[in-house]
Amino acid sequence: MTTWPLPPGSTIGILGGGQLGRMLALAAARLGFDVAILEPERDSPAARVAAHSVVAAYDDPKGLAKLARLSDVITCEFENVPAAAVERLRELGAEVAPGARALAVAQDRLAEKTFLNENGVPTVAFAAADSAESAEAAVAQIGAPALMKTRREGYDGKGQRWVEHAAGAAEVFRALGGVPVIVEAQANFVRELSVIAARGRDGALRIYPLAENHHAAGVLRRSLAPARAAPAILDQAERIAAQILTGLDYVGVIGVELFEVEGGILLVNEIAPRVHNTGHWTQDGCEVDQFEQHIRAVAGWPLGPTDAIRAVEMLNLLGEEALEWPRYAAEPESRVHLYGKRQIKPGRKMGHVNRLRGL
Amino acid sequence: MTTWPLPPGSTIGILGGGQLGRMLALAAARLGFDVAILEPERDSPAARVAAHSVVAAYDDPKGLAKLARLSDVITCEFENVPAAAVERLRELGAEVAPGARALAVAQDRLAEKTFLNENGVPTVAFAAADSAESAEAAVAQIGAPALMKTRREGYDGKGQRWVEHAAGAAEVFRALGGVPVIVEAQANFVRELSVIAARGRDGALRIYPLAENHHAAGVLRRSLAPARAAPAILDQAERIAAQILTGLDYVGVIGVELFEVEGGILLVNEIAPRVHNTGHWTQDGCEVDQFEQHIRAVAGWPLGPTDAIRAVEMLNLLGEEALEWPRYAAEPESRVHLYGKRQIKPGRKMGHVNRLRGL
Repeated sequence: MTTWPLPPGSTIGILGGGQLGRMLALAAARLGFDVAILEPERDSPAARVAAHSVVAAYDDPKGLAKLARLSDVITCEFENVPAAAVERLRELGAEVAPGARALAVAQDRLAEKTFLNENGVPTVAFAAADSAESAEAAVAQIGAPALMKTRREGYDGKGQRWVEHAAGAAEVFRALGGVPVIVEAQANFVRELSVIAARGRDGALRIYPLAENHHAAGVLRRSLAPARAAPAILDQAERIAAQILTGLDYVGVIGVELFEVEGGILLVNEIAPRVHNTGHWTQDGCEVDQFEQHIRAVAGWPLGPTDAIRAVEMLNLLGEEALEWPRYAAEPESRVHLYGKRQIKPGRKMGHVNRLRGL
Repeated sequence: MTTWPLPPGSTIGILGGGQLGRMLALAAARLGFDVAILEPERDSPAARVAAHSVVAAYDDPKGLAKLARLSDVITCEFENVPAAAVERLRELGAEVAPGARALAVAQDRLAEKTFLNENGVPTVAFAAADSAESAEAAVAQIGAPALMKTRREGYDGKGQRWVEHAAGAAEVFRALGGVPVIVEAQANFVRELSVIAARGRDGALRIYPLAENHHAAGVLRRSLAPARAAPAILDQAERIAAQILTGLDYVGVIGVELFEVEGGILLVNEIAPRVHNTGHWTQDGCEVDQFEQHIRAVAGWPLGPTDAIRAVEMLNLLGEEALEWPRYAAEPESRVHLYGKRQIKPGRKMGHVNRLRGL
């Protein structure tokens, strides 16, 4: 039986060895924890800063057993962990946070939007479809143009396409692989915002200031935070974060992507049950950043303060932009965060820069 | 031939696997570097956050060869690395920073004070001795009470004793092991300060705000920074740091312990050619902390800004004080840094807390 809070010297297991796992591992180390990374690829960014590395597929029973043996608590750097893997870890007696419900909701866009609406959190209108015919009907119901997304496994703009006319719905459905989809009404948003928030094992909530986010081709390029926003917007964001965290009986940090639409209304675009790219600014802009906050939450520590201490412009370094590190390293106002990825690929997230802007 | 600046993805070798090596490794990882730790003990705090670990004595030729092979540049977490080890690394073609001269000066209190005075940096009066007779003569020359210190291998108050009367000098000399010593005049200081500073490969200097330090039994308990000080004191500290860094043709971060004596004069007590316990406040108090600064310097990156952004009270957690972590974790103004040491021992540095005090 695990007792909370976990004392320093305990081991935090992390499913996933990318940059989020790496930054979680660095935060855990600062608090005196050891880290164990499970990740299918050798020499992953996170494994290189962790005490223990298990190289195995996410659904490999031996790998999962080893991770469970090493770890006092296990968390994830991404939401597309096979549900069966988390199930298996639980059967092995492991503590996993966030829980199966959060993963189930975040892995299925239909379950996600249904959960949100049922908990009083507004989204765009949507309809589900699992055949070319029902896809057409869904678009007819929602109205074109509409965004068709696979229910599962999309991120950074993958697994989604615009449907310009109801007549084209069947074709888009087939182009997405003929898998179950969700059809979403176009959000005529003024801007994209996000709120990063945390819930502790004691149910305590901590909510970070809003970030204003700029995407290109579905990938985050830039966040500005704290975002300027009217009090009514801030109130909505806090209420939304609280409803989601409480509704999921969540433990850890969550990222909630928001649309601000005409009339000062926030709609939730999607939720990510993990630390989030739009929360990287907190590393240099907030009292306790999202990575330490997540470790505190899953380890049963009291949550830390989320207040902003600086305004930040966060820039993602994608692909060859990472080669511009000398320029950022020379800027007094820039804090450089690089992920240790061995290979530059077009569009790959290689690092980010937090440019400080006073407050 | 190494070219500077070292690109991310390069490997930083570190001699020493304690908390300073660990915090250097975490800073290096943030900038996208890999780290290799050479340290005689298995499972060291730094090795657990490093990509490569070499478990070997500091003078083991095989271990040194392996470290040299793994690393693009090598640095130290402490100054008592055998000079022969650094020599060996250089013969193997390794880049080592700071250089042999800085280590030679810092390893020998006589060489240190001689270097300081020759470079126009004031210290207390001192005299060398290598026998019971010359020890007595040295105390007679300096005047009792005087502080007798072994020339080599002292830290945290070890290897030093007070001589109350010249007649007791021979006994103290023998108690210290009969090794070469230095006899220092008592510094009637008003307070103890320190200045942390850095020099880049391009010769650029960056100097942190002063810290005011409180010791007990020779061990640092508490630093307050930025220390309140008259402009004349700040000027002296900057001049001292610049003279030392330039005089040693230094690359990296250095810690300089200072006495402020009556009349607003600063004397140098000792220099540590490495990141320093009295600089831990910079992690949460300064633009770029001493650990990232040291990595930037040895990697040939431009140095970062050293300005204070918050006032900090840094508390060392010694021995069982580390068990008080839940209290500090619950304080909104406290940032907890724990070192991952497996065993609590009386007086052992287990972690520190940076308590933020506004600015």
